Amino acid sequence: MYGSDLYPKTHCEVTVDGLSGLDRLLAIEQIKRTKAFYCFSMDTKDWDGYQNVFTDDVVLEVPSHGMGDEAARVEGASAVRKHVEDAVGNVVTTHECHTPIIDFTSATTANVVWAMEDMLRFPAGAPVTTLHGLGHYFEQYRQVDDGSWRISHVRLERLRLEVTKD
Amino acid sequence: MYGSDLYPKTHCEVTVDGLSGLDRLLAIEQIKRTKAFYCFSMDTKDWDGYQNVFTDDVVLEVPSHGMGDEAARVEGASAVRKHVEDAVGNVVTTHECHTPIIDFTSATTANVVWAMEDMLRFPAGAPVTTLHGLGHYFEQYRQVDDGSWRISHVRLERLRLEVTKD
Amino acid sequence: MYGSDLYPKTHCEVTVDGLSGLDRLLAIEQIKRTKAFYCFSMDTKDWDGYQNVFTDDVVLEVPSHGMGDEAARVEGASAVRKHVEDAVGNVVTTHECHTPIIDFTSATTANVVWAMEDMLRFPAGAPVTTLHGLGHYFEQYRQVDDGSWRISHVRLERLRLEVTKD
Repeated sequence: MYGSDLYPKTHCEVTVDGLSGLDRLLAIEQIKRTKAFYCFSMDTKDWDGYQNVFTDDVVLEVPSHGMGDEAARVEGASAVRKHVEDAVGNVVTTHECHTPIIDFTSATTANVVWAMEDMLRFPAGAPVTTLHGLGHYFEQYRQVDDGSWRISHVRLERLRLEVTKD
Repeated sequence: MYGSDLYPKTHCEVTVDGLSGLDRLLAIEQIKRTKAFYCFSMDTKDWDGYQNVFTDDVVLEVPSHGMGDEAARVEGASAVRKHVEDAVGNVVTTHECHTPIIDFTSATTANVVWAMEDMLRFPAGAPVTTLHGLGHYFEQYRQVDDGSWRISHVRLERLRLEVTKD
Repeated sequence: MYGSDLYPKTHCEVTVDGLSGLDRLLAIEQIKRTKAFYCFSMDTKDWDGYQNVFTDDVVLEVPSHGMGDEAARVEGASAVRKHVEDAVGNVVTTHECHTPIIDFTSATTANVVWAMEDMLRFPAGAPVTTLHGLGHYFEQYRQVDDGSWRISHVRLERLRLEVTKD
């Protein structure tokens, strides 16, 4: 099933003990900022900044990109950074995230779905020229000791994927 | 006129009696979530979830899609759900909503404008292959008895519409 | 360097004296609304509304659009309005802004980065047919006497730009 166990159930807010009102809104704002920085650091190739949006034990799950590659599952912030830097370090990437659905599962954890669109332009000589994807990030966030909310699990699923070759 | 009576007047916040500070921010967050679920449920074909984002007396107004169809006006949550499910139940849809402008008109009602982009890919054999639209949702929301904010009026207007046929 | 001195440093919130908790969230919401109105008023050609999102002393910096034009630096709200109205008054424009990173630099000033996408369709007879850009707005905002947050500096930088000619 699309999104699997991270598929959200309702348009209504899910409330949890210990996180409501102002505290909940502050956590939502920090979660949005963390995802903003995920996109910004990847697209501007700030790989140290990119690694910092994740918890040390983050798990990344990405599907095949339709370019002969396989689906991947990567564990750990430094391994995720290396995986993504190797994949798109020399690719012009632009990532857009829209309209999150945020469900807190405790005062320090949340499930989040982002509608996403990514547009990639590969360098001359690459097997493909452009990639255009549309789908969702199904994610989990955790507040860590420095107070920031970081991504602890990312599962990308796509509804549509188009790859072009000049 | 584009947006008609729902065209917003100012970049400044419009404040109303009885909804300010924290209460206003909580209502804004719920309105954003409701629209997120509108897009998410339509694009993942969760039609029960889709119906639930609307008030029972919702009105949907959509323009022609440039595919020989006519503009439509549909009343009632179950009729809206049927109309949309019939139209795009077997179409790959992706809806993006951006940068809402939210004006409360009372403590339990709001006018909202969302910048929108929709990209549709039709199944083999359909009269058209893809549709790409850009414009705005001019909407009204109302807080109902369960505390959630639901869409009570949707008027879609487009600035640009492109339909392709392979 | 991309973004120059306005490049944000961290995924964590930057806090400043005198603006925290509810006050910070209210300012964030107003900043988002101001940018929403920037896009909305430009795309619907409400040029009075467009001018009002800026401080009187705003500075706009835009790169070349790859159409034989030069990078521009424009000072003052009325000059910015004239510059943009002259450039796209008869062009179908759609501007999307995503996932802001907002750093307050005082209780009444903030640095903000927006991921952006713009899609332009020029009228018949223009030198080009469409323009498609992806990049970031690096901006500064200031709260003015009427309480609203306005844009005091806009610097647009693009990661990708494509211009087509039929």
